[in-house]
Amino acid sequence: MSLDRLIEKIAELQNPTVAGLDTKLDYIPGFIKEKAYAKLGKTPEAAASAMLEFNMGLIDRLCGIVPAVKPQCAYYEMYGWQGMKTLRGTISYAKAKGMYVITDGKRNDIGTTMQAYAAAHLGETDIDGVKYTVFGGDALTVNGYLGSDGIKPLIDVCKKYDKSIFVLVKTSNPSSDELQNQAFEGGATLYEEMGRHCGEWGKELAGRYGYSGVGAVVGATYPAQLAQLREMLPGTFFLVPGYGAQGGSAKSVAPAFDKNGLGAVVNASRSIICAWKNSGAPEKDYAKAAAEAAAEMRDSIIRETGKIKL
Amino acid sequence: MSLDRLIEKIAELQNPTVAGLDTKLDYIPGFIKEKAYAKLGKTPEAAASAMLEFNMGLIDRLCGIVPAVKPQCAYYEMYGWQGMKTLRGTISYAKAKGMYVITDGKRNDIGTTMQAYAAAHLGETDIDGVKYTVFGGDALTVNGYLGSDGIKPLIDVCKKYDKSIFVLVKTSNPSSDELQNQAFEGGATLYEEMGRHCGEWGKELAGRYGYSGVGAVVGATYPAQLAQLREMLPGTFFLVPGYGAQGGSAKSVAPAFDKNGLGAVVNASRSIICAWKNSGAPEKDYAKAAAEAAAEMRDSIIRETGKIKL
Repeated sequence: MSLDRLIEKIAELQNPTVAGLDTKLDYIPGFIKEKAYAKLGKTPEAAASAMLEFNMGLIDRLCGIVPAVKPQCAYYEMYGWQGMKTLRGTISYAKAKGMYVITDGKRNDIGTTMQAYAAAHLGETDIDGVKYTVFGGDALTVNGYLGSDGIKPLIDVCKKYDKSIFVLVKTSNPSSDELQNQAFEGGATLYEEMGRHCGEWGKELAGRYGYSGVGAVVGATYPAQLAQLREMLPGTFFLVPGYGAQGGSAKSVAPAFDKNGLGAVVNASRSIICAWKNSGAPEKDYAKAAAEAAAEMRDSIIRETGKIKL
Repeated sequence: MSLDRLIEKIAELQNPTVAGLDTKLDYIPGFIKEKAYAKLGKTPEAAASAMLEFNMGLIDRLCGIVPAVKPQCAYYEMYGWQGMKTLRGTISYAKAKGMYVITDGKRNDIGTTMQAYAAAHLGETDIDGVKYTVFGGDALTVNGYLGSDGIKPLIDVCKKYDKSIFVLVKTSNPSSDELQNQAFEGGATLYEEMGRHCGEWGKELAGRYGYSGVGAVVGATYPAQLAQLREMLPGTFFLVPGYGAQGGSAKSVAPAFDKNGLGAVVNASRSIICAWKNSGAPEKDYAKAAAEAAAEMRDSIIRETGKIKL
């Protein structure tokens, strides 16, 4: 099962983290952008081309350290179809380098429409009998507000193509409280109910290491909820955003892990891909700076969780 | 304000409906697809090219009858960047023909990531000082599960670029009950709470006709909830999916409207764009069949709501 591959990769590299490829133009060193602008002008083509070069450089250095990357769709979509071409190129390059790819799209819809998203990101698109892999990630983040009608089509595709999903449960932002923390009449909060559904949906995608292919997104900024959900959902793997720039630390993510150091993958974006800016490294060393930041994050977390055992 | 333009167009055409461009390959007549395959093979390029030709033919015939189109992102995304290029082409063609465009993406995220989606779909993308309109719709559907942090960045862009959003409140699918209908401790259901937030968020985007630029998605399949939300949210405009193929009728959508026949725009996709198949019309007449189905839908609804008055 797809998530087993992520878990094995985490154990192999002894690193339960994922590098978020939130590739904003601001984060790309000038020498890469200037080359693209010189050739293509300040166009979406140039932006998309600079993004791909930057991402490939990062992936080359990160693939021996970090098990997974998480490209954030919004930063590609904002450059239109040219950006989406770079999303595809980035995913395909990361996979060729052995990385697990979580496409962060937070997609949601129902029935045949959700099937279309599932085909785009996890399965194949059928063009009158000829099948194409479109974006080709290993897992997709999704929003479960619409209920099972929005999740079942994904589970069918996950089964067929050996893929996984991560459902938004308790997000890392301050206003996630507004709806997610409200308690229903039975006493459970909305995020607990969504978590419970993840456990149910996951029964159809059981894995080898006790975790199903229906994961949950739970923010690093809410350690109490992380601990509570870890206990409540022993078979649900967590994708934990909000480490670093948003305020999450190795201590605050520790409750997401089980006694074997498994159960979660922690995302950092800016603190890795912008490390060259933050550390004042020369532009040409941007990927080296990212790798150093990633190794440091790995070490901080492993100090809290101990050795990862399969 | 952007939604005022939709309302004026609805009144001008005396038609409170939107044609959903859920352009599946199955819905496209063979003569259009064969031409594309002959030139480009059974490729994403060919699919995307056939979709654009089909959509343009529909828009040519619908623009005098229907005020708006709603392309569903999933059906474009499933053909990758080539499909996204057709999404852009479709939006730009519909706008050139005077139609209001609601991009159905159900996007959701927070902070700078939501800003990126807002730039992509409603605002402009800045490439080191040069600004591009990327997809260029007039309104975007969004999912509010993440709370205000996911909505505020959209409202800022809506203000600056005169655009609107529609937030998922009570969706048309059977399992929308699972979470949306659960009651919180105070007694309000999740969909009522989401509706109430739409009312609050909308205060920043007041319109000329009593409706704000933060609309709500409420399914045609739940007439009781439509009536309840219409009363509860007098300043919130509704986008009503689920008419036709999903089971909604003119009678079931009638409660979405106010006494002037305003307050909602009803979407139909399959029953319009597939009308040529359903009616057994010759392939070449697909757009004529769509226009006839759209006029019939308009007449059915207007019989219920009466003349639309501004």
